[in-house]
Amino acid sequence: MRPIALLSDFGLADPYAGQLRASLARRSPQSQILDITHQVEPFAVDQAAFFLAASAAHFPADAVFVCVVDPGVGSTRRIIGARVETEAGGQDFLAPDNGLLGLLLFTPGLAPARVFDLSGAAASYEASATFHGRDVFAPLAARLAHGESMVCMGQPMDRADIERPAWADPSCGPMGVDARLLHVDRYGNCLLSLRANFEAPKAPAWLRMPWGQRRGIRPVHTYSDLGPGEIGLLSGSQGFMELAANQAAAAEALGLRRGDSVRLLWG
Amino acid sequence: MRPIALLSDFGLADPYAGQLRASLARRSPQSQILDITHQVEPFAVDQAAFFLAASAAHFPADAVFVCVVDPGVGSTRRIIGARVETEAGGQDFLAPDNGLLGLLLFTPGLAPARVFDLSGAAASYEASATFHGRDVFAPLAARLAHGESMVCMGQPMDRADIERPAWADPSCGPMGVDARLLHVDRYGNCLLSLRANFEAPKAPAWLRMPWGQRRGIRPVHTYSDLGPGEIGLLSGSQGFMELAANQAAAAEALGLRRGDSVRLLWG
Amino acid sequence: MRPIALLSDFGLADPYAGQLRASLARRSPQSQILDITHQVEPFAVDQAAFFLAASAAHFPADAVFVCVVDPGVGSTRRIIGARVETEAGGQDFLAPDNGLLGLLLFTPGLAPARVFDLSGAAASYEASATFHGRDVFAPLAARLAHGESMVCMGQPMDRADIERPAWADPSCGPMGVDARLLHVDRYGNCLLSLRANFEAPKAPAWLRMPWGQRRGIRPVHTYSDLGPGEIGLLSGSQGFMELAANQAAAAEALGLRRGDSVRLLWG
Repeated sequence: MRPIALLSDFGLADPYAGQLRASLARRSPQSQILDITHQVEPFAVDQAAFFLAASAAHFPADAVFVCVVDPGVGSTRRIIGARVETEAGGQDFLAPDNGLLGLLLFTPGLAPARVFDLSGAAASYEASATFHGRDVFAPLAARLAHGESMVCMGQPMDRADIERPAWADPSCGPMGVDARLLHVDRYGNCLLSLRANFEAPKAPAWLRMPWGQRRGIRPVHTYSDLGPGEIGLLSGSQGFMELAANQAAAAEALGLRRGDSVRLLWG
Repeated sequence: MRPIALLSDFGLADPYAGQLRASLARRSPQSQILDITHQVEPFAVDQAAFFLAASAAHFPADAVFVCVVDPGVGSTRRIIGARVETEAGGQDFLAPDNGLLGLLLFTPGLAPARVFDLSGAAASYEASATFHGRDVFAPLAARLAHGESMVCMGQPMDRADIERPAWADPSCGPMGVDARLLHVDRYGNCLLSLRANFEAPKAPAWLRMPWGQRRGIRPVHTYSDLGPGEIGLLSGSQGFMELAANQAAAAEALGLRRGDSVRLLWG
Repeated sequence: MRPIALLSDFGLADPYAGQLRASLARRSPQSQILDITHQVEPFAVDQAAFFLAASAAHFPADAVFVCVVDPGVGSTRRIIGARVETEAGGQDFLAPDNGLLGLLLFTPGLAPARVFDLSGAAASYEASATFHGRDVFAPLAARLAHGESMVCMGQPMDRADIERPAWADPSCGPMGVDARLLHVDRYGNCLLSLRANFEAPKAPAWLRMPWGQRRGIRPVHTYSDLGPGEIGLLSGSQGFMELAANQAAAAEALGLRRGDSVRLLWG
């Protein structure tokens, strides 16, 4: 039975993540259930999109992903599925059509995904109007885990038709590049909406803050390359560029928060 | 091997939940271990009772539940077990006799449970005076997971003899009904001690706050039926009535907290 | 396949613990993955050392432990492994050489562990400069889970050569003993760097606070032995002495925090 990976904004203090896992365990008892995290900030689709794009490649190559950050639950937003072929059978992704797959599916170098509208398959489960993760996504995921194919469950869609938010595509100009803080991690590192393989015309040397001020930054290879108080820009372990300090919280030093927009300026 | 579900107030920052899981994995390595949550507020038996009553039906039909919110640990409170028959073998519940099973066992429509005093079976494990979850509940649960029957482990009790706190039975009068906030969830929804199938003489239209003030509420079907700033009363996904707002925190808007008592008044 | 236990300071809000679990699940899909906790305070090696020493004996006797609290990641600190023989095959521990194994390996009565320098084996995986948990520790652990022996993976070391911080050995004098608060738990209990089997010349009766003040304490057997407002010293469930109150937070009552040093004075 295929393993199932979970990503949500349910937190762990409510019984919701537990009920989602339970609903999967009841329907697919042999599947290993693996959490990416349930602590996406409530309704933060951009943060969830980053977590998914950063994590998928580390999960089993045949995993089914259930991604539920869903401000529009109960409205008419679509439920979509994506299929990415891998060397070991392929990964399937289930999510509301709100941009959550917007970073994953446009990862440079990723095999082109096929995308499906699963709203029809979902409709048969919409018994509970408020908890689609447990009552709609989980039974769909269990069917995939049992070997059913997404091709038979949904209507093929053009990948260009899925929701793709502006933050998924930072614009790079002659002076610099605009980026969004998709996440501030536990150590204060600021994860930017710039791929780790981002190629700039020149090395970024300045950071322009949301309130206009400039601050010097240094492109480095790892945290320990940085001196005390210094802010570095590095291509970290998550596949995205990050602003970091050495054993200190860059976010605090810079006064930045998740969702802020910054510009990296060439040296 | 039967799956095992866990509910506690241990949190996840201490090693206690990990040691409980480990103790079960050591004794019943083939059992799938599923957390409901470990983040019940310390000693909040009413919140735990709600989490359990809301979650059990979503878990595998043959699960063993270990429920440890236990202000009286080390005292002489009983350890009780309950057996609820299901279509697939039955669910077993282990808990201190402090009201934790008080909502679950009196769920309308639930097959009548058989209740057992397990204090005798527990006594043989009471080596550690402070951590009964790991050292007493876990070995009892592992025996059930291996196929032992609760009938052979404990003394049958009358269901009426187990602890049943006042909050488990809201009183409904001609003017309205008193309810307790059993839980405020991550999104600010206020879960009330009223079953989702609660039938009122008239639709509730007013909420009387703990400090006496009244506030209008609207019975709705789902969150997105509500306008900005509006407070709704809905029968949510947890089997209990909840006060909610649309993409906003009802608890904050109302100034209510877990444990508060409110009255719903007829329209 | 051997079970794998995880201990880290990654928290659960970032995707790091999820990626560590995923990396293990991809390489050793049959292994049960068990968290001790991921909520060690960032870089708090002493707290992690306590969690590990308190927890290992409760885990399966053939478990592989991945312990990652690693302020020196990316520097030249060694990665070490320890092998502790048990009645069921033995437990293996992977950690940076920074004191994290300093309490576990010197537990009184524990079978002497064999210690190995795994830096050579680790070097072949050091692709990602910042996330050794996922990219270095996980593949090493998966090899152990598959049956490979640490003897073949590393260079034997003298146990005396591994990093052993001062807090691992409280000094006991004629007047009293100095101890460090290794952890304050969810209930406010203060876990001390003193083994539960600690034998003092006389029963401790006074606590000298970091700021010099004295406070009476009473050695007790369990929390419920304490009266309101009273502070007890007890040999708790974690194998270490703790300062506690009855259904109240001792840490708050005493004004103590993790990392503080106190002296227990004889009566």
